[in-house]
Amino acid sequence: MKSRTSSAVIAVDAMGGDFGPSVVIPGALKAGRETGAKLLLVGRQPDIEKELASADCTDVDFEIVHASQVAEMHEKPSDILRHKKDASIQVACRLVRDGKAHSVVSAGHSGACVACGMFTIGRMPGVERPALATLLPTEKKPIILLDVGANVDCRPQHLFQFALMGNAFAQDLFESSAPRVGILSIGEEEGKGNAQVKEAYDLLKAAEHLNFIGNIEGRDIFTGDVDVAVCDGFVGNIALKLSEGLGSSITRIMKREIMNSGLLPKLGIWMAKPALRRFADVVDYAEYGGALLLGLRSVSIVCHGRSNSKAICSAIRMSSLFVEKRTNDKLIQAIGASAELNRSQKTA
Amino acid sequence: MKSRTSSAVIAVDAMGGDFGPSVVIPGALKAGRETGAKLLLVGRQPDIEKELASADCTDVDFEIVHASQVAEMHEKPSDILRHKKDASIQVACRLVRDGKAHSVVSAGHSGACVACGMFTIGRMPGVERPALATLLPTEKKPIILLDVGANVDCRPQHLFQFALMGNAFAQDLFESSAPRVGILSIGEEEGKGNAQVKEAYDLLKAAEHLNFIGNIEGRDIFTGDVDVAVCDGFVGNIALKLSEGLGSSITRIMKREIMNSGLLPKLGIWMAKPALRRFADVVDYAEYGGALLLGLRSVSIVCHGRSNSKAICSAIRMSSLFVEKRTNDKLIQAIGASAELNRSQKTA
Repeated sequence: MKSRTSSAVIAVDAMGGDFGPSVVIPGALKAGRETGAKLLLVGRQPDIEKELASADCTDVDFEIVHASQVAEMHEKPSDILRHKKDASIQVACRLVRDGKAHSVVSAGHSGACVACGMFTIGRMPGVERPALATLLPTEKKPIILLDVGANVDCRPQHLFQFALMGNAFAQDLFESSAPRVGILSIGEEEGKGNAQVKEAYDLLKAAEHLNFIGNIEGRDIFTGDVDVAVCDGFVGNIALKLSEGLGSSITRIMKREIMNSGLLPKLGIWMAKPALRRFADVVDYAEYGGALLLGLRSVSIVCHGRSNSKAICSAIRMSSLFVEKRTNDKLIQAIGASAELNRSQKTA
Repeated sequence: MKSRTSSAVIAVDAMGGDFGPSVVIPGALKAGRETGAKLLLVGRQPDIEKELASADCTDVDFEIVHASQVAEMHEKPSDILRHKKDASIQVACRLVRDGKAHSVVSAGHSGACVACGMFTIGRMPGVERPALATLLPTEKKPIILLDVGANVDCRPQHLFQFALMGNAFAQDLFESSAPRVGILSIGEEEGKGNAQVKEAYDLLKAAEHLNFIGNIEGRDIFTGDVDVAVCDGFVGNIALKLSEGLGSSITRIMKREIMNSGLLPKLGIWMAKPALRRFADVVDYAEYGGALLLGLRSVSIVCHGRSNSKAICSAIRMSSLFVEKRTNDKLIQAIGASAELNRSQKTA
């Protein structure tokens, strides 16, 4: 994917993630080289410079933006917002707010990313709660799952808005006029689900401009027969982490069984490797980089804390693509249009 | 597992599941032959007899109990309970209530199974809401996940009771004095989760006789480092079906990739088959049969609607084992003892 055509400027939280600059910088440089996007590397200047010293910076357009503080995992998002004005994630969001960058990428504290995104970058008109949307691999093309963790206690109206945002995102991403939108529940039939989902179902059913296919179950996520799966952030976060965990566990079990088996199976697996590599891609979340925080005025991508360089690189590539495609502007338009629909729901 | 020592009498809902007697009867006969348990095959006599005519009934102790009605999937549990007194699931539960059978196994309408279990067999003293507990394969020994669908809208107090029941079940099943009990949430740290989980956390933390290890995340389910994972029935049902679905999808993707690859990978996979067969066992839910409805006066096992004969056989084997081991009596004792603890929570 060496386009090198991007004119995007991306603020990268260099201090984010479990491994900080040692993982973020190499991933960012690779993405910068591949896409041509300009990178603003935000964080403690000495730490960033140290990483850059041993890295290959050729053909990468970047700048260091010093930020003296780091948002720690144990801190409350509200505390970071209030008391750590110079945290790398806050500084990165301010660069976007002030028009110096088009988007933010961070693998740091997700709660802090959501809070800084909401209060520093600001929400799209009409959106009450931004939602984290992630792409998951399926048997066919990827599915958009949202919310995967920005909102743990949601009202039905919030799920309705997530569906509208997911729909607009899918229209742009999959170039599809009527993506199939489903709500995650415990049975396909109408009337199945908890109180929250049943109410959201009624709102979604009444939305004329939505290809709402009704309830979907956990098993439908990976078949590829749905484009957007909507749920609250508690359910979505558990579903996402469970998928990643099961993928890793299956891989480990397979490796263990192969190690404990005879020469013939070992040789067999070696011969089958080209086919199994594609299987491994499917269970590897790093392919998809991170979750998009939908509902902000600009693109913001929140990566997994455990992200490796590949995941950071994918996230920046994705971010640059969305900036180029003006995905967020299209979302603002779509949400603006359906705010009408939204209001009509409320007064109905 | 040919023990043939069981003195259990098991009421089998012969009409349950997507495939009815054609799948239930062969599975039941196999389990009956293997365990020595007596089977009461409940359902439409002509349908059952038709299946038996072509089946191998040697060495199986069974009886047919005629029930003229069948609980249909689209019917409400409350309607079945009120208006279908002769539905096979109701008749099967009455056999248990009247002391003619020790336990029920059904692959029918799960809502109807829960409702008939609650109102016909009755709840254990002290239990407000019975919960469906399932065993999931992990990298090490299996984990108990509950609730997987009996209660979609729960209060924190219900999650607390699920933990007590899951703990007592794990003590018996894993022969462990202090099984590790976790609550499914979106982060390991205390204070992470939705309102329901945060409150349940506080209740669980205060329970002295519980080896409560705190929050666990979706990715922790399959590592084997937790024995009991507690969640509400909405989250649990989605988690369970997602796991099954991901397992199936991964298997299908692998098969597809192998089919589309050259001769060498195909030969390789054939050679590796013995090792991969163990991997397949792990992603095959049929191994575990069904979910145990914890909190009733007798053992009741609810199988997946899509169960095959193997799953039915496993469920009956499991049921017979629990009857032999007096698992339910031990649960009643444990819950009785912790009802004290329970009350102390309420008054605290």
